[in-house]
Amino acid sequence: MSTRIAYLGPTGTYTEEAALKYDGEAVLVPFQSIPAAIGAVDDGKADEAVVPIENSLEGAVTYTLDVLIHGSMLSIRDEIVLPIHHCLLAKKGTEARGIETVYSHPQSLAQCRSYLEKNFPNASLVASLSNSTAVEEMKGDGASAAAIAGQRNAEIYDVEILERNVEDNPNNMTRFVVLAKDDHERTGVDKTSLCFDFSDDSPGILVSVLEEFSSRGINLNKIESRPTRKSLGRYIFLVDIDGHRDDPDVKDALEALRRQASMVKVFGSYPRQVSSSI
Amino acid sequence: MSTRIAYLGPTGTYTEEAALKYDGEAVLVPFQSIPAAIGAVDDGKADEAVVPIENSLEGAVTYTLDVLIHGSMLSIRDEIVLPIHHCLLAKKGTEARGIETVYSHPQSLAQCRSYLEKNFPNASLVASLSNSTAVEEMKGDGASAAAIAGQRNAEIYDVEILERNVEDNPNNMTRFVVLAKDDHERTGVDKTSLCFDFSDDSPGILVSVLEEFSSRGINLNKIESRPTRKSLGRYIFLVDIDGHRDDPDVKDALEALRRQASMVKVFGSYPRQVSSSI
Repeated sequence: MSTRIAYLGPTGTYTEEAALKYDGEAVLVPFQSIPAAIGAVDDGKADEAVVPIENSLEGAVTYTLDVLIHGSMLSIRDEIVLPIHHCLLAKKGTEARGIETVYSHPQSLAQCRSYLEKNFPNASLVASLSNSTAVEEMKGDGASAAAIAGQRNAEIYDVEILERNVEDNPNNMTRFVVLAKDDHERTGVDKTSLCFDFSDDSPGILVSVLEEFSSRGINLNKIESRPTRKSLGRYIFLVDIDGHRDDPDVKDALEALRRQASMVKVFGSYPRQVSSSI
Repeated sequence: MSTRIAYLGPTGTYTEEAALKYDGEAVLVPFQSIPAAIGAVDDGKADEAVVPIENSLEGAVTYTLDVLIHGSMLSIRDEIVLPIHHCLLAKKGTEARGIETVYSHPQSLAQCRSYLEKNFPNASLVASLSNSTAVEEMKGDGASAAAIAGQRNAEIYDVEILERNVEDNPNNMTRFVVLAKDDHERTGVDKTSLCFDFSDDSPGILVSVLEEFSSRGINLNKIESRPTRKSLGRYIFLVDIDGHRDDPDVKDALEALRRQASMVKVFGSYPRQVSSSI
């Protein structure tokens, strides 16, 4: 039986593209929100969920971080990195120079601002709830309209690609995570995501905890902070480290971390697709 | 002449409340967006700007962080911490039990979700662009309607406070910063905000930099990361430390930081209203 993957829909989103890249054989089931997609795995309606966690221009998807911290017992089982290339789409036969309206999600409009100003200085920009919704709305527009969305929408909605790669910054990439009941077995080239916090003011404690990793030669990939929701200035830290939670060094470091932190939650270990060192 | 303070408007916002708390004598000038308020100081139309930077439930206001990093040469001159208390407002004579619609900014509706579900399970929730706009829209609604907004709106829009403190989490606080051409002179109880990044993969460099502070007994208040916009996994780190940039210890630490980082930008030193230690 094929794996059932819940994703942030509707069909045509970049999350769907990421899910296809991850498992081309899976049955993909769209959900309207990140919590709904994750909830589908909790409820057994899907085996895995694919959700965005970080974009190279916008930063963390805080909604996903908060669900991992507070709202779900699922594990991160894999990661997917997808280059984001926006296309300018229009109904067949539309001439680019006649375009009066451009539909897209506000974030995509912002990511193509210079392109739009240069090529369509007089067009009205209209916000849509998702890039795929934008294509639907463009199709329903009586006048000359275009939409900014991923290339898969051309097929799905039977419209034309007027231009590819209309994003202003070519370094636009999104990292997605695959959530499931269990994380991934060791592959030898792994990464582990976790979060922790401290109960009280403890000067120097963050450095001391990060040293548990660096002194063992464990590479730190990233660090994020999110509010504990208890008081201003109290944070939960999220880090990605190289290595699997079953690696002896990582095990040691996590034990040392548990002695200093008031809460430690390991989101999971999974094969590393992308790494950096800080 | 009174100080002219640009703030994220319209009148009635929590940012206006913060600006009044900071300087009750100032001439307050509302702007429609954070960049517009900051731009007013750049252009000499205002002396200072007050903008939100962090909320105890939602986390960093990434828009303000990104303007500080990339878009402005202004300094942080002061900070203001404001407890956020939402009120349920309605036209005079409105009975709470008859309310069919509740207007507010989506973030405020989310922060009062349990209150609304308990007290108005059948009301339609309608999103507005700001809490103050919500009060205007509520006033224009023919049927029985309410709005969630700060108490100052009751006076400004001549409506009634049906209930105070309708927020679900009592620990709702926002931290604002005051931006100006210069930062603040030493007071002895100060804080310094700065950002830095590293040019390449440098395992352990973040710990090494944070040790420049901890080894000198300089307390770290917070750490945030934002994307460099160059590649996935490259970050700019923002930290708040105790002390003034003219304090000898802080000066030493900043010099040591400059030797390791590829970019260091000190946003400013200012009197410390709130502190924590990590």
